[in-house]
Amino acid sequence: MEFILRINFSAPDSPKVSKEPIGGYAGLGGRGLTSAIISKEVHPLSHPLGAENKLVIAPGMLSGTAAVMSGRLSIGCKSPLTGGIKEANSGGQAAQVLARLGYAAIVLEGKPAGDDLYKIYISKDKVEVEKDNSLKMLPNYDLIEKMKGIYGDKIACLSIGTAGEMKMSAATIACTDMEVRPTRHAGRGGVGAVMGSKGVKVIILEDKGLSNRTPKDPEKFKAANKVFTDGLKKHPVTGEALPAYGTNVLANILNEAGGYPTNNFSSGTFAGTSKISGETQAELEVKRGGLATHGCHRGCVIQCSGTYNDKNGKFLTKQPEYETVWAHGANCGIDDLDSIAMMDFLDDNYGIDTIEMGATIAVAMEAGIAKFGDAAAAINLIKEVGKGTPMGRILGNGTAFTAKAFGIERAPVVKGQAMPAYDPRAVQGIGVTYATTTMGADHTSGYAVATNILKVGGFVDPLKPDGQIELSRNLQIATAAIDATGMCLFIAFAILDQPETFQALIDLLNSFYGLNLTGDDVVALGKKILKMEREFNAGAGFTKEHDRLPRYFYTEKLPPHNVTFNVTDKELDQVFNW
Amino acid sequence: MEFILRINFSAPDSPKVSKEPIGGYAGLGGRGLTSAIISKEVHPLSHPLGAENKLVIAPGMLSGTAAVMSGRLSIGCKSPLTGGIKEANSGGQAAQVLARLGYAAIVLEGKPAGDDLYKIYISKDKVEVEKDNSLKMLPNYDLIEKMKGIYGDKIACLSIGTAGEMKMSAATIACTDMEVRPTRHAGRGGVGAVMGSKGVKVIILEDKGLSNRTPKDPEKFKAANKVFTDGLKKHPVTGEALPAYGTNVLANILNEAGGYPTNNFSSGTFAGTSKISGETQAELEVKRGGLATHGCHRGCVIQCSGTYNDKNGKFLTKQPEYETVWAHGANCGIDDLDSIAMMDFLDDNYGIDTIEMGATIAVAMEAGIAKFGDAAAAINLIKEVGKGTPMGRILGNGTAFTAKAFGIERAPVVKGQAMPAYDPRAVQGIGVTYATTTMGADHTSGYAVATNILKVGGFVDPLKPDGQIELSRNLQIATAAIDATGMCLFIAFAILDQPETFQALIDLLNSFYGLNLTGDDVVALGKKILKMEREFNAGAGFTKEHDRLPRYFYTEKLPPHNVTFNVTDKELDQVFNW
Repeated sequence: MEFILRINFSAPDSPKVSKEPIGGYAGLGGRGLTSAIISKEVHPLSHPLGAENKLVIAPGMLSGTAAVMSGRLSIGCKSPLTGGIKEANSGGQAAQVLARLGYAAIVLEGKPAGDDLYKIYISKDKVEVEKDNSLKMLPNYDLIEKMKGIYGDKIACLSIGTAGEMKMSAATIACTDMEVRPTRHAGRGGVGAVMGSKGVKVIILEDKGLSNRTPKDPEKFKAANKVFTDGLKKHPVTGEALPAYGTNVLANILNEAGGYPTNNFSSGTFAGTSKISGETQAELEVKRGGLATHGCHRGCVIQCSGTYNDKNGKFLTKQPEYETVWAHGANCGIDDLDSIAMMDFLDDNYGIDTIEMGATIAVAMEAGIAKFGDAAAAINLIKEVGKGTPMGRILGNGTAFTAKAFGIERAPVVKGQAMPAYDPRAVQGIGVTYATTTMGADHTSGYAVATNILKVGGFVDPLKPDGQIELSRNLQIATAAIDATGMCLFIAFAILDQPETFQALIDLLNSFYGLNLTGDDVVALGKKILKMEREFNAGAGFTKEHDRLPRYFYTEKLPPHNVTFNVTDKELDQVFNW
Repeated sequence: MEFILRINFSAPDSPKVSKEPIGGYAGLGGRGLTSAIISKEVHPLSHPLGAENKLVIAPGMLSGTAAVMSGRLSIGCKSPLTGGIKEANSGGQAAQVLARLGYAAIVLEGKPAGDDLYKIYISKDKVEVEKDNSLKMLPNYDLIEKMKGIYGDKIACLSIGTAGEMKMSAATIACTDMEVRPTRHAGRGGVGAVMGSKGVKVIILEDKGLSNRTPKDPEKFKAANKVFTDGLKKHPVTGEALPAYGTNVLANILNEAGGYPTNNFSSGTFAGTSKISGETQAELEVKRGGLATHGCHRGCVIQCSGTYNDKNGKFLTKQPEYETVWAHGANCGIDDLDSIAMMDFLDDNYGIDTIEMGATIAVAMEAGIAKFGDAAAAINLIKEVGKGTPMGRILGNGTAFTAKAFGIERAPVVKGQAMPAYDPRAVQGIGVTYATTTMGADHTSGYAVATNILKVGGFVDPLKPDGQIELSRNLQIATAAIDATGMCLFIAFAILDQPETFQALIDLLNSFYGLNLTGDDVVALGKKILKMEREFNAGAGFTKEHDRLPRYFYTEKLPPHNVTFNVTDKELDQVFNW
């Protein structure tokens, strides 16, 4: 990870490839590096789809090492969805391979003059940027099959589907998993549209002839890795719940808590929850010969993923995540797992964010475009997105956009990005995160659900404003730091509850880099990242007025608790006052 | 004008009508009153289409009097297009009638629970709010014919077409002219969508049994009116150019100045200008038995309007304005006046802003939806808006929205509102106004074209940044004050050049209200209005970063002068530093 690979599509001899020493960015990784490059090099008022924006793809500080859980990839840019800075985080194999290739980041810069499409091939020996218009409008699965035909299956790919090519604000960048399937996505904020604006369809990372990055102190590193792994395995969330049922174990829990947003955030409970819960899903997956537990990248010891086969036992899609099952399920009044799995596949194939898409379809349902609960209609709407019909152009640009198109007031968004699967009225801590994070409504930026609902890291009553600011603040700081390491965010459960697991994470960093970091340094890193991001956003015109939920969350009561969001504006303004 | 008429659609006994004394708002009118009510009574973060927003319809301080040119109406709200405060200004008969009915403002408040449509009838004796779903999806011309059938032709109407019912961000409120045709529009910022969100299709103002408002000092008032009228008649712009050729006299002038935006702001000159100029238009109108000079409201002595007949001599639309001819003409590469007139009629009929629509179609053309110059395709696109097809939903929400739908970077907008017919690179003073006005890109907020191009009020070189800040500042202040009086903005030419005409305006106000205002007081009024508006916008999340042109105006050179916009950000931030 000594180099940054820059590919400039505006240069006179475009596309121009340059491999630079990491220089001033040394020591940064993941979200720390993407946010540093974006905040330093991109004009905050630049157009997200213009030549001034950059797309930064960065493995974490520990990616490419033997550390477990270190395979998360950060993708940063100015977001076409929010207009602010964005880090979208993905599993899959790319982070590990990219780090082993020696790159701290790939930076796509400039903008090609025409509408040609490029593929980029990176091995340990060479970097090739090749024009290939035969790839135009290929969905991700077909594209990856084609790449496997050319390059074999020892590759990791980053790609956009049709949505990214059409520069839709809900477009993702797909990352292939261990089976070289485009199932993991840097989903949020329209990063796929930015890749599309650079004319890049796919980046192929050659996984041959590479070896793990070497720690400064291999023995200490190995020991720390053991303690860290044991810590993850003994925590009930990462050792039991997630491996057994995947992320969708949350469905029943959130439904019981009355915070499971249903029919476009009009209720906190969904009558069909038992039909789409993680427990039901796992049982069905096993019955059909799929997997209820599986990892999304090498080195994962939590194994919260799985595979979902269709009625004939044929692979349909990876195990749809909790957020996806909710977005296309409860939030649209749909209680059929097969339909939800089909939508998950279509989203992955066209390269669109499942959260944004589910929230969007629910708004379209409120507008009368389809009925709540009509799975066939919902599937057809996703197909419109994939084809780029005018209706698809509306939906593919997300929830806020669709609400505006149809004159709908109830758009559950912050900074233009759709809220995920926790109603902020019933889980007020996550409401604070939605409102204040630099990313737009995003649960992963400060997962207060852990403490509000799962009682991890203590307990803060989800229905009251008390303590939520401090909770969200601390989680946002910790998350920014974790997102810099390349670690899966799910390690947070164990490091919040188990001091020795937190120490093991620090030991991993120290033994790898030959440092003497303390817990305070990790906190300082998190704060530094948030500060860079907030400065970028301020330059892009964001103020405290953007750190608010839509007005109706303050006035419309959510059943069954009949609560509104009651953290005050003044309190919200204290989140970053540390 | 002693009363404010409030109609509340959220009240328990909705719709609830209340006629209140003007109270604390006494002495305000037009934009002064709309901006006062919005900034005082509307939460700046409220949803533009929600119950918290209000629609304020206010004649000016001199409307309903014998003062010439006093028939302008201000319509204010939080804008669905910009997200900021909005005052959209219209001619037609409504201001005069509303003022004579004794109302300083009509305020539509709350939001009906269902999707019923209402009509409101106001005479000197009564106010009736009646549910009438038979009016649904009537375009403006059919609607007004129906109203004339019921109420006769001594009425003035305010109405929305299909676009307003569909709550599109480019929807207007139509105001009938002297012939009771829906040809004058409060066009900008989507005020029609807000009227639609209140469920109000049409407001009928009964013009029977009314008399002019009486000045405190009738003799002085009469004398001032005479001096004022003479001043307008002797100024070359209002006495010669505008009556002879209408506003479109500007086409040749701006084209010669290289500031006539062509093909989505990619050039400053249009090859087809002579075919669509004001001179050509006037000749054609007269030849077909139309009028090349006509007033839009009683009391107009400039007569810059006209009527445009089709090839068979049948009325097609009012004389399309300069901005309309440009928007649907040069900016879309279209040089056919009949096609442009047809688009003007369709815009009026569906109730959509001609400026926003022309800028939008040009962006759609850049996206490849139609070819530049294809008039038939452009006409069809407007029809899609009127019908509300998915494509129409995209286009009807304006230029920024359409650009986002199709992933187009070159959207000529500020604060989400499309730029009018002057390229800010070739007319830098209007660029300062576009960037900094509270309204989003808007020429009428501070018409620096007057001094940059027409050499009214002195001369400031249009291609250089020098002097533009002071010019725009002074014009924005003066305009805010004029917009409060109910006077047509075209009086500005004469009052800028002729001190005695400016004094006559002050004398009109003083003799009417029994005041002793000076020029300084008028300036203070303008500043007060701008301050209220800027405070509202700050509360809605606007910062200096929103007071900028899109980045490409700083980097892309405009032929033929090959200039970029070169007023610095630091200079722009001085506009309101008075």
